[in-house]
Parts: sequence; C-alpha cells; structure tokens
Amino acid sequence: MTLETLSTGIDTVWVVLSAAMILLMEGGFALLEAGFVRYKNSVNIIMKVFADITIGTLLFYAIGFGLMYGSDVGGFAGVTGFFLNGDLSHLDVPVSLETFWLFQAAFTIAVISIVSGAVAERINFRAYLLYIILMTAIIYPIGGHWAWGGGWLSQLGMQDFAGSAVIHALGGFSALAAAIIIGPRKGKYTPLGVSAIALPSNLPLASVGAFLLWFGWFGFNAGSTLSATDVRIGHIAIVTMLSAASGGAVTLLYTLFRFNRSDAPSVINGSLAGLVGITAGCAFVGDVAAIFIGAVSGLLMMAATNWLDRRQIDDPVGAFPVHAASGMWGTIAVGLFATDGGLFMGGGWSLLGVQALGLTALVIWGFAMTWIGLKLIGKIVPVRSTEEEEDLGLDISYHGVMAAHQAHEFLDGEEHMRAYQEKSSDPNR
Amino acid sequence: MTLETLSTGIDTVWVVLSAAMILLMEGGFALLEAGFVRYKNSVNIIMKVFADITIGTLLFYAIGFGLMYGSDVGGFAGVTGFFLNGDLSHLDVPVSLETFWLFQAAFTIAVISIVSGAVAERINFRAYLLYIILMTAIIYPIGGHWAWGGGWLSQLGMQDFAGSAVIHALGGFSALAAAIIIGPRKGKYTPLGVSAIALPSNLPLASVGAFLLWFGWFGFNAGSTLSATDVRIGHIAIVTMLSAASGGAVTLLYTLFRFNRSDAPSVINGSLAGLVGITAGCAFVGDVAAIFIGAVSGLLMMAATNWLDRRQIDDPVGAFPVHAASGMWGTIAVGLFATDGGLFMGGGWSLLGVQALGLTALVIWGFAMTWIGLKLIGKIVPVRSTEEEEDLGLDISYHGVMAAHQAHEFLDGEEHMRAYQEKSSDPNR
Amino acid sequence: MTLETLSTGIDTVWVVLSAAMILLMEGGFALLEAGFVRYKNSVNIIMKVFADITIGTLLFYAIGFGLMYGSDVGGFAGVTGFFLNGDLSHLDVPVSLETFWLFQAAFTIAVISIVSGAVAERINFRAYLLYIILMTAIIYPIGGHWAWGGGWLSQLGMQDFAGSAVIHALGGFSALAAAIIIGPRKGKYTPLGVSAIALPSNLPLASVGAFLLWFGWFGFNAGSTLSATDVRIGHIAIVTMLSAASGGAVTLLYTLFRFNRSDAPSVINGSLAGLVGITAGCAFVGDVAAIFIGAVSGLLMMAATNWLDRRQIDDPVGAFPVHAASGMWGTIAVGLFATDGGLFMGGGWSLLGVQALGLTALVIWGFAMTWIGLKLIGKIVPVRSTEEEEDLGLDISYHGVMAAHQAHEFLDGEEHMRAYQEKSSDPNR
Repeated sequence: MTLETLSTGIDTVWVVLSAAMILLMEGGFALLEAGFVRYKNSVNIIMKVFADITIGTLLFYAIGFGLMYGSDVGGFAGVTGFFLNGDLSHLDVPVSLETFWLFQAAFTIAVISIVSGAVAERINFRAYLLYIILMTAIIYPIGGHWAWGGGWLSQLGMQDFAGSAVIHALGGFSALAAAIIIGPRKGKYTPLGVSAIALPSNLPLASVGAFLLWFGWFGFNAGSTLSATDVRIGHIAIVTMLSAASGGAVTLLYTLFRFNRSDAPSVINGSLAGLVGITAGCAFVGDVAAIFIGAVSGLLMMAATNWLDRRQIDDPVGAFPVHAASGMWGTIAVGLFATDGGLFMGGGWSLLGVQALGLTALVIWGFAMTWIGLKLIGKIVPVRSTEEEEDLGLDISYHGVMAAHQAHEFLDGEEHMRAYQEKSSDPNR
Repeated sequence: MTLETLSTGIDTVWVVLSAAMILLMEGGFALLEAGFVRYKNSVNIIMKVFADITIGTLLFYAIGFGLMYGSDVGGFAGVTGFFLNGDLSHLDVPVSLETFWLFQAAFTIAVISIVSGAVAERINFRAYLLYIILMTAIIYPIGGHWAWGGGWLSQLGMQDFAGSAVIHALGGFSALAAAIIIGPRKGKYTPLGVSAIALPSNLPLASVGAFLLWFGWFGFNAGSTLSATDVRIGHIAIVTMLSAASGGAVTLLYTLFRFNRSDAPSVINGSLAGLVGITAGCAFVGDVAAIFIGAVSGLLMMAATNWLDRRQIDDPVGAFPVHAASGMWGTIAVGLFATDGGLFMGGGWSLLGVQALGLTALVIWGFAMTWIGLKLIGKIVPVRSTEEEEDLGLDISYHGVMAAHQAHEFLDGEEHMRAYQEKSSDPNR
Repeated sequence: MTLETLSTGIDTVWVVLSAAMILLMEGGFALLEAGFVRYKNSVNIIMKVFADITIGTLLFYAIGFGLMYGSDVGGFAGVTGFFLNGDLSHLDVPVSLETFWLFQAAFTIAVISIVSGAVAERINFRAYLLYIILMTAIIYPIGGHWAWGGGWLSQLGMQDFAGSAVIHALGGFSALAAAIIIGPRKGKYTPLGVSAIALPSNLPLASVGAFLLWFGWFGFNAGSTLSATDVRIGHIAIVTMLSAASGGAVTLLYTLFRFNRSDAPSVINGSLAGLVGITAGCAFVGDVAAIFIGAVSGLLMMAATNWLDRRQIDDPVGAFPVHAASGMWGTIAVGLFATDGGLFMGGGWSLLGVQALGLTALVIWGFAMTWIGLKLIGKIVPVRSTEEEEDLGLDISYHGVMAAHQAHEFLDGEEHMRAYQEKSSDPNR
C-alpha cells in the first residue's frame, strides 16, 4: 500500500459516489416533472427520462465522449475516444478514464433531462428519441468540448466549475428552442390568460423530485473536483447549500408578501434555481456572494416564468426559468464575484468578458442546433403529438398505460374501510 | 501528496457525504409528514420543511452557529463565529470549519423539522416562519452549546454522541409545547374518542419518507465521528441498523399479536424510534444493548402515542412519541449500557446522573423556550389557523394550491383506458 | 496517522456508504412493488419489506451470518459467528467484522425482498413472517456459504462477484416456488387470457422505486470490492451503468417497434434486468460484453414474463423475470465473457462448467427449500389469504388500514379550489 494507491482509491470512490448521486438526480427530474404535469402525461415524462438515461448513456459512450474529451481539433471538437478507445493520453485526471467517463455521462443525461421538461405533454415520443441522439451524441458534447474539453473557450480562460453555462444554460436554451418549435399545450393560453391546466398534478411527488435533486447536487458540484484531496470541497458544499437556501427563501418570502401566499412551485423551483446559479461559481466565490447569487437566481426564475407566459411560450415545468435564466446569471456572476478575477473583487473586466462571450456562444449553440435538429427530425416524424394523442394523454397514446389504474377501487375502498371500522369492536382504534 | 493531505481529504468527503445524507432526511421528514396528514394539508407541511431548510439554514449561518460553537461565555453560549467570522480557533475538528458548519446545519434543520410535524394541519404559516427563526437561531443553538459546544453539560461529561437528547428530545419537547399551545385539530377528539381524521392520507408516500430517513441516519450517526479514520464507524453503523430493526420488529409483532394486525404507522414510527433511541449511544454501547434499546424505543413510542391521546394532545405525525420518548430513553440508556461508565457495565451511578441532569435541562429548555416563544409570536400573528382556513385546508389557505389537481381527470382517464382497450386489437396485452 | 490507519478508514467508509445505499434499495423494492400491485394491497407489500428489514436483520445477526461466513464444515455451512461471536479469524476482509456484517446483512434482506414481490396480493402475512425466518436464517445463508463463505462452490472456483446467482437467481427461484405454491391472484387468469387486474396501480411510485434501486446498485456492485483501493471500482461502476442502460434501451425500442408503444413496466424491469445481469460479471467482463449482457437480460426478462403467463404462474411484480432469468444469464455470461477464463475469450470450457454447476445447485436449493419450507409453514398457518381477505384487500385485512384515506376529500377539494379561484381577484394567477 502506497500513498499513491490510497490517493487514487479515495479519488475513485469519491467520484463514483458523486456520479451515483448525479444519476439519482434523474429520478429527481422524472418525479419533479411528473408531479408538475397532468396525470395523463406523467408516465410519458418518466419514460422520457428513462430514454435519456438508457439511450443517452449508450450514445455518449459511442460518440459523445470522444467529441467532448477526445484529442482536440481546431478548438471545436475532439476526435478520439469513441467507445472509450483511441488516444486519450492528453486527459490529465486523477481517476481512471472509466471513472471519469461515468461522471461525465451523468452530466450528459442531466442536460437532455432539462429539455424533457420543456416539451412535456405534447412532443411526439419518437421525435424525442431522435432528439436524444442529437443532444447526447453531438450538441452537448461539442459545446462541452469548447469549455471543458480543451476547446476554444477553455483556451480563453472561461470559468464554469460544474456547469451553469455548459449544462444548465445550454440545456435551458435548447429547451427554449424546443418549446417554441413545438408550441404551447392545447388550452394553456386562452384569451383570458394562463389557464388552470398548468396546475401541478401531484406536488408531493414533485417535492420528492426536488429533494433528490438537491441531494444529488452535492455530488454534482463538489464531485466536480474529481479529487477527494481538493481543498475546495468543503467550501463548494457550503456555498451550494447557502445558494439553494437563499433561492428558496427569497421565493418563499416574495410570494408570501406579494401574493399573500407562499407559492409552492415557486419555492421548489427557487431552491433549484439557487442550485443552478451557484454551479459555475461554487469553487470561486465566497459565502456572502453565494447567498446573493442564490437570491437573484430565485427572483430571475420568477421573472423568466412571467416572461415566458407573456410570450405564450409554454414550458410546463419551468426548464428555461430554472436552468437557463439562473444558469446565465451564475455564469456572469463568476465574472463579478470570483475571488480571483471577479470585477467586484478588483479583477477587472477581463474574466467577465470571457464569461459573457462563452455564455453567448454556448446558448446560441444549444438554441440553434436544437432548432435545426428538430426541423430536420420533423422531416422524418412529426415533432408534435396529434390533437387526439394530446387529448387522450400521452401515457395512453404512446405507452398504452396510465399512471394509475384501479383509481375507482381506491374510492370504493373507502367504503370497505368504513364497513370494516363499523364492524370492528377494537376500542384502541 | 502527504499523509496529512490524504487524511484531511478523506475526512472531508466523509463529512460532506454524511451531511448530504442528513439533508436528504429533510425529504424524508417532508414525505413522512405529508403521508400522515390529510391531503388538504400536505403541501403546507412540505412547504414548512422547505422553510426549515431555506430560512433555517440562513439563520444558523448568521446567528445560530456562533451561539452554539463560538467561544464559550459562562458555559451558556458562544459569542463568536456569527456568519462564520470571528475567532473559532478553539474548535478542534479534523475537517475545515466550512465542512463542519455544513454538517451542523444539517442537524439544525432536523430539529426544526421535528416540530413541524407536531403542529401540522393547524398552525398559522407566518407564525411558523417566526418560530423557525427562534429555533434555528436561538433555542437549539444554545441547548446544543451546553452539550456539544463546550458548555456546562459537556464540562460535566454528558455523553450524547449524535443527539438523542440534543436533537431529538429537545426537538420532541419543543414539539410537545407547540402542540399543547396550538391545540388539537378540529374534530380529532370527539366524545367517542379519537376520530378517523387521524388516518394517514398516503402511506406509500410516508414510507418513502421513512426509507429516506433510515438511509440518512447512517450519515447522522456514523458521520458524527467527523473523521473517516475513527475506528468506531463500523460499530456505529451496525448498532444503528440493529436498533432500528429491533424497534420496527417489536412494533410489528406487538401490534400483530395484540390487535391481530400489524399496524403500519406503528411499524414505520417504531423503526424510526429505534433509530432515535440509539443516536446517543451508538458509539458507546454494544450490539445486544442496541437491540434492547431499539425494542424499548418501539414500545415507548407506542405508549407515548396512547398517553398523548388520553390527554387529547394532538401530534399528527407522532413527533413526541418518536423523538422525545425514544430520545429520552436513548439518553438514559447511555448511563445504563455504556461500556465505559454505564451502570449495568459496572460504571456506577455517576454517568447516569449526568445523563439524567443533562436530559432534564435540555427538554425543559426546549419546552419552555418554545412555550414562551409561541406566546410572544402570538402577540404578532395568530399562531392558530382560523377555523375557515383549517376547514378549507392549509394548502389552499396559505399556498393557493392543492397537492393534486385534475384528480377528476384521473378518474375519467379510467374510462379512456377502457375505451382504448376495447378498441385495441393487440393480442399481447 | 499511518498508511494502514488511513487505508482501513477509507475502506470502512466506502463499505458503510455502500451498505447504506443497498439498504436504501429496500425503499426501492417497497415502492416498485407497491406501484405495481393494486391499491388495496400496497400497504401490505410495504409492510412485508419492513418485515424483511427488521426481522430479517435480527435473524441474520443471530443465525444466518454464522451459517454463511462461520468456520466451514464440509463445504456445506459455517458453524461459528452466531451473534457475531465465536471464531471468525478465517475471514480475511479489509474492514472490521462489524462493517463486513452490515454489508452482508444488506444483501440478505435484498434476497428476501425479491420473494416478497412474487407472493404479493395473496400471501397470508403470518406465513410470510415465518418464511422470512427460513430465508434469512437458513436458505440464503447456506447457499451463500457455498459460493462466498468458503463452501464447495467457492472451492471449485465459481465466480459470482456481487451475486447474480447467489442473490438474484436463488432469490428469483425461491420466488418462483412460492408463486406456484400460492397460486395466482383471483381473477388474474381468465378464459380470455391475462386480465386487466395486472395493470399497475401507480407507475410514478414504481419509478421512484426503480431509481432508488439503480442508485443503490452502485453500492451493491462496486461496494462488493470491500476495499476503496481495489482498482476495479471504476470499471465495475461503468459496466453496471452500461448494462442497465442497455437493458432499458432494448426493452424501450423492442416494445416501441413490436407493439407500437414503449411499455413502461417493461422499460423499468428491463433496466433492472440489465443491473441483475451484470452483477456476477461486473468485475470480470469488458464494456462491450456488458452492453451485450444488458441487452440480452432485457429480452430474457420479457420472454420470461410471457413464459410465466403462458403457464399461469402469477408473479405480480416480475420477480422471476427480473431476478431469476437475468441472474441465470449473468452467471453463465461470466463463463462466456470473463476476460480471465471466459469461453469466448479463449479460456476454454472449465469456468463455464463451474458457473453452470454452481448456478444449478443454487437455484435448486432456493426452489426446493422454499417449496418444502412453505409446505411446512402451511401446517402451522394457511399460506394463502382467504378469498374474503383477498377481495377486501390485504391492507385492510392484515393491517386495518388503507394506502390512502380521505380520497373523497381529495375530489371534494377540487370543488373547493374552483370556489377559491372564482373568489380570488388576484390577476397574477
């Protein structure tokens, strides 16, 4: 047993456990989204997440990883490492390539799962499957290469520690493009404004999702060190917590004082916005900056939600407000608050400029490629569900099943229970 | 890479992962409580847990941590460390201050979440928000200082490894005070006894909560070592498991033979009681003692539940029976079974006396401060919901939303499904 | 601080965290099964899992561990280590005995939880409790001794890294025996084929279960190294992910193209089948083999589901297809694809022969002992619920409770909400 063996061992279990936590976030996405959409579409949205994990993982293995982390060509993309083969000797990571791959795969399926929420309740399932290929094999890997894989943005010095820009803003703008192309759910926007079909079908289920996401985010941010001996881990974890708390607190109090009630979906999404916002800067900014970043993230999330509704862009679970709005802010906030290079910390305008440039490039890439991609997919299969499929619900239309069966039995059971209780002579109940 | 670097690294990831697991317990609390209360109040109880995490975290950062772990004054409270600033050089922990803070913050929001269950379905939401401030900034930190922060109880030698007294008994007695002040839910107690409104609205959801709590408890107890090289970790984990198993088994078998049915809420709460009971002694008692502690915890939980109902004190999710009754027993059990100093292990009466004294001080502190605090809060806002709010449900009253929407669609869907199946000619379904 | 201290520390936290993740899989089993069965039996199935964890843990502590890992007698069983006492010096593990025990206990309750699904909705609860004793104290420990505890199969060189055979195939064949003895649910098989009572009651809940299982499987497989410095950890984790993705992808695409809809229960169970299939070989086979193993696991799961229905063997949650079919295949696949000794890797027939022999022995042992055991239990209490109990639902019959109460209030609430919205003058909703 040597120090090196031990060091590699501890780094490996740290990254594997972090990756498992990020993968559990897929459960979080699935349940959050299922709880926010209507019953008749909740199996479909969970199946989309299963498709993200299963098909997305295999495509990132075959193609995506090579484009993202393979040997760089022209700052644009990698060209080795497909199927984890070929020369990857330029990668300097403290863990094995396979361990590193697993962590990156968990990130990849997070990106596609961001989009799945925005197209909920009306995308054609086959079109979505084709889009998964595009996103996990090409769009995200190439954008990721620019910032993380040795591409032009990393050469410029862009700082995006765990992906406010690369994961969340890119994913969120892809979600926006998809939501615009596919159009709003039937009946969402009426001459009188936003209709009640937008009300969540199951908030406790959505909350399970939020708690799983929050838990997984510690792996997402702190695990991005890729090394257990990175001295920043404790700091990353605390600012992640503080920003999430701040994002949730500000939405809770804002809706309480503004509307005289604490709005549950806003609080859930506000906490998640705080998590998204700190993702870029968790290794670079201080505690107080983290609290500020989280608070602004929560408010921006609410503003972006209103902005979408005014434009009648239908994003059923708030993918754009949570991931794109807070992700953009978080990326810019690094340029403002980074203790090394932030504008407000005396670092001048240079980092801020790079952050803005990188952010712009990544969100345009995500938006444009998704727009083009869905237009191309539309030449093969319709991207939008038929009106009949949408009315019937995507669960029955695409999966031949419903979220819940025997729901009437559920009610009849109440009568059985009353009969049982009347018969029961047990004085202790 | 040196041994010290590695050692700090492994301690850090151990404590961060443990803290993340404890934070996931908030999801556990939320779902357990949401599953035990009525539908119309289940969003409200989840929102209270979100308030615990978001507002509680920020207050513990600003004020609570300083009172708990700051430089000691007179054995009563700390006076440095607010906003993690000021002299904290007296703290001798193997991890960074920020990592230590995160772990303690996770504990703090567990305490307030214990109270949230006892006041479910009828506390005014604004009053609860004010109470969060009191608990996370003052009540728990000062009590915690006494036993863990260098205060008078730690000077006397009180042993409470992961908080049967400091977290659970203090939290449980605070819950009791709050439940008494606020009074029972309308209709809970009738001239004929306990009414059926106490039946849980969603046991599978409550079970999700219990499993998350059980999982997180390994971080709660074993993580309290704060060091991955603490040789007690394996022992702590096994006795945690044995006590939980014993608490659950005894309630399962007792209700089976006594009432001819295994009572699900009792088994869930019995397992949790076993976890609470072993929390003080997990590092100090043997395996067989742990099994005994768990079994007694389960039975005490049931006895305390009956005791509350006889006194018409309404504690909708069993916060007092689970946390206070088992927490008291667990604290005392250290004085009986600790291999070093326990009465039954030949250690004499001294440790038992200190445990009893410390326990008494902490539960009185929690009960009295909550009583006084809620009386003061009552001068600002009513602590109890209006009858109209309670009838309508707190979800609609305070959050303008329900746990589930389109529930009718849920039933109509059954008809769609039947229509679909009749049309379907697929012989494979 | 020495290298040895550090090494033991990191191994301990790795195994404790892995064990906690495996224990969380019990939550996964409970929710997966509860979501797949009818409402009226969902509390019962969760209570069976609680019985597995509580009673099973205590029995494995008292008896099972000794039979499995105690000092070997004749290759058949161990005879020391009951209550973790007696000579266990032959065990050569990198962590403490207590840590090792916890990990093994988590495995044990996974085995019994496999059976709980197959007997759902119609087993007598008391008979099930007696069967838990048999499984956790005797059947699994003795089978496990053969392959893992120094018994005759380990002497022959059988390779089953994390238990495709020992856990899943043995558990799955025990489930088969139990399902046959107990017979199908009333009304499941009609002259017209499989009836609609088999439709899942709550797919989102089942999905929560699947995500928890997937997460826990990283502890299950990678944690089986028992050492954080085992260089195979990264590889184990990646092949676990690839096989699960492959099992899920193949069922998703197969059902999409064959039946024109992606079948949600098939995709869920296909992913789990991929996880089961790779469990034996995760440390021995390459990436591409893992993808192949997962794909075949998914298809075998579907074939086995049809096979059961043709034979009118009722396995409500697919315990046999997921665990036995994929477990058998995974065990054999080691003999085909192991880089060291696999037939297709130039290793000849020897390993394949041992795998087939060991597998056969273990599944016969599980099947026969369960058959005999349930026949014996049937002499004490009926193994099958009465028709009245089954009609009423096991939740009310055995637990005096239902999964959900106030379900009517749930609907009435919709009317309250509409009334609230009509009254509300807030223009922002």
